[in-house]
Amino acid sequence: MTEQISIGKYATLLTLTDEDTAKQLMPQCREMQFLTGRIGTMSLNKIIASVETAARREGIISESHYRETHALYHAILEAVNGITRGELSIGEIMRTVGLRFAIVRGYPYKDVGEGEWIAVSLYGTIGAPIKGKEHETIGLGINHI
Amino acid sequence: MTEQISIGKYATLLTLTDEDTAKQLMPQCREMQFLTGRIGTMSLNKIIASVETAARREGIISESHYRETHALYHAILEAVNGITRGELSIGEIMRTVGLRFAIVRGYPYKDVGEGEWIAVSLYGTIGAPIKGKEHETIGLGINHI
Amino acid sequence: MTEQISIGKYATLLTLTDEDTAKQLMPQCREMQFLTGRIGTMSLNKIIASVETAARREGIISESHYRETHALYHAILEAVNGITRGELSIGEIMRTVGLRFAIVRGYPYKDVGEGEWIAVSLYGTIGAPIKGKEHETIGLGINHI
Amino acid sequence: MTEQISIGKYATLLTLTDEDTAKQLMPQCREMQFLTGRIGTMSLNKIIASVETAARREGIISESHYRETHALYHAILEAVNGITRGELSIGEIMRTVGLRFAIVRGYPYKDVGEGEWIAVSLYGTIGAPIKGKEHETIGLGINHI
Amino acid sequence: MTEQISIGKYATLLTLTDEDTAKQLMPQCREMQFLTGRIGTMSLNKIIASVETAARREGIISESHYRETHALYHAILEAVNGITRGELSIGEIMRTVGLRFAIVRGYPYKDVGEGEWIAVSLYGTIGAPIKGKEHETIGLGINHI
Amino acid sequence: MTEQISIGKYATLLTLTDEDTAKQLMPQCREMQFLTGRIGTMSLNKIIASVETAARREGIISESHYRETHALYHAILEAVNGITRGELSIGEIMRTVGLRFAIVRGYPYKDVGEGEWIAVSLYGTIGAPIKGKEHETIGLGINHI
Repeated sequence: MTEQISIGKYATLLTLTDEDTAKQLMPQCREMQFLTGRIGTMSLNKIIASVETAARREGIISESHYRETHALYHAILEAVNGITRGELSIGEIMRTVGLRFAIVRGYPYKDVGEGEWIAVSLYGTIGAPIKGKEHETIGLGINHI
Repeated sequence: MTEQISIGKYATLLTLTDEDTAKQLMPQCREMQFLTGRIGTMSLNKIIASVETAARREGIISESHYRETHALYHAILEAVNGITRGELSIGEIMRTVGLRFAIVRGYPYKDVGEGEWIAVSLYGTIGAPIKGKEHETIGLGINHI
Repeated sequence: MTEQISIGKYATLLTLTDEDTAKQLMPQCREMQFLTGRIGTMSLNKIIASVETAARREGIISESHYRETHALYHAILEAVNGITRGELSIGEIMRTVGLRFAIVRGYPYKDVGEGEWIAVSLYGTIGAPIKGKEHETIGLGINHI
Repeated sequence: MTEQISIGKYATLLTLTDEDTAKQLMPQCREMQFLTGRIGTMSLNKIIASVETAARREGIISESHYRETHALYHAILEAVNGITRGELSIGEIMRTVGLRFAIVRGYPYKDVGEGEWIAVSLYGTIGAPIKGKEHETIGLGINHI
Repeated sequence: MTEQISIGKYATLLTLTDEDTAKQLMPQCREMQFLTGRIGTMSLNKIIASVETAARREGIISESHYRETHALYHAILEAVNGITRGELSIGEIMRTVGLRFAIVRGYPYKDVGEGEWIAVSLYGTIGAPIKGKEHETIGLGINHI
Repeated sequence: MTEQISIGKYATLLTLTDEDTAKQLMPQCREMQFLTGRIGTMSLNKIIASVETAARREGIISESHYRETHALYHAILEAVNGITRGELSIGEIMRTVGLRFAIVRGYPYKDVGEGEWIAVSLYGTIGAPIKGKEHETIGLGINHI
């Protein structure tokens, strides 16, 4: 990992802790573009829509190019797979989630020719739709953009 | 999350950062039983065997009771699902992983009747079996024990 | 299997035959806690909700402890995977199910230290939402509780 | 289910109990073609090969027609999905199985135009490759032939 | 492939090109029963219902026999797996599809004893529910009937 | 589809028919970079390695940039999902494949800002490891590069 800037670790620290802690632990990521947000839902499409909308609104991805939406979409889907751990489903199998999300965009490889990549982190709880009947869950998706 | 001690966050901080940082960020977990280790492989069964062996050797789970092996096994499998994001396969689909792992065992709920739970965190890289052609990946599994 | 009491077989006989036949074939399970019920639906969450509600109402699991809900939930999900055989979906892929379910809770291992386990059996039909255009299906989930 | 002869139930009773019990409980299936066998393995392809070989040797399916192999293959795969409950993998994820299998071939529908169908039942244990560290598992696959 | 008439290729050419081109490229399939249609949706069950309804209306499968519905259903599901590439879900994960479909029924094997088989081809676009933010996708399912 | 050049259709025609037919049916793709090849195997990693090696040798992707390997890898995996239709496995579940593959790289969108994309088509047979006991299968993967 010495040759990479760990944008996935940075995105995860942003959901696990807070901006100040994440930047202090990873000063090499301070200049990177990022955003964080929250979502509580029983529908996977609301997770996807919330993350995509935030990314477009904050200018993390271009609104006009499908290419960037496509890159972000697959990164989100990979993060959601971590959250759901085997079955890409929440409400349909009686689960609800309460998540913090973070998106980081930047150049993780020393070789600038590797271009920009995007990391999506999801962290929070998953469980029965009853307060307290839940445990933690985490997911990370990474894609070239 | 106010009513839980976040053992999943603690396990993840142990793989993302180090013992000192994790304990400083989460002093409420300082007394919990945990271990960390490393594994590089193209076989899922080596990930499972490494984590299980470490857990038994360090006394995180009982060697004699299947119940505890069963709880740990499913927690590992859930973490592996985060790592592989959709296809429970690595070498068979030409991927290799280099991972740090952490296991935490403790009482995450205020109500002691909820008993002990176990968290397994995996963090590292996944990619082609060529140095540098890889990106980060993360997984977390949680189970009652 | 000589060292185990087959609670999964008992649960399955309860859905395939009836209480009297099941108890006659497996007298060693006569004292175990169990319940049976029926559900017809196109939604996975109705299967889960029906089995969970029955389990709580009949006192098979504790209503107050998430730990027991968590154990039952994963046992149900495993049984549902047997029913759906590869795709965790029914109505979304135009299938309907008519099922009998049974839950058994007890000590299946001679070593009492292995504690209590739970078995969930689902048996019935799956098919197009037209009477007769269906075939049989079965699922079994087992978890420590 | 009143309009069907439950070949899936019959196949399952053959793996859960024995030929005499299954025939006594389901006299309407007495004339149906069936076979039973055993397999212990860490490889899915050994389960498939064992069931297919037994079916050909005993004349349950025609050796010369791919059509019948294709029908049986998908019935086996569906039963294996019940056994593995979500991940079509055993040895690769450190699990071993010890199974009884049964195949039943016959006319389950009153309408003879529905033709012959095949049921494959698998029942036994799945778990760590250490004696006793295992629990029960079941699977059923049904296909037109 | 010399011993087979490639009904899958024929079905795919019917969705990729048109009837005249498909028949010109594969004159050996000219006499086979087929149909084509279009569907745009965010629900998997609408794809399945559209293909099944067209097949029954055009007499490709028998309306009265479950056997034929069962064969077609599994062929459709396999084609849908090609379209969705790993997650059997569209609207729930914020994807929409615009598809052409073709069904072909015939004898693909020289040995008439192999009987009739059915091929289902799906071809079109999948993507975000915004015009232009989509790329191509294809799926093929084949089953004995 | 009027605003796109269908690189997926072109890749598929290259595996279904031949270079001359594909170019005649899609003259707008004549200038695009492409290659075709063949592979017969029971291992998914051999499919991936064969397609990746051909792509690097023919200069379809850059050998030095992980970014391009990553884009191609996911396109291959999506095509393989079409081939295996639900279970990302071949030899382990007793299947063998004989495939033609094609890779196309180009600008499918009128807006040049959408950049280059890659399409991977796989077409051939899948079945039991016995000649003739097989049927056709197809897969298509598309990614931004």
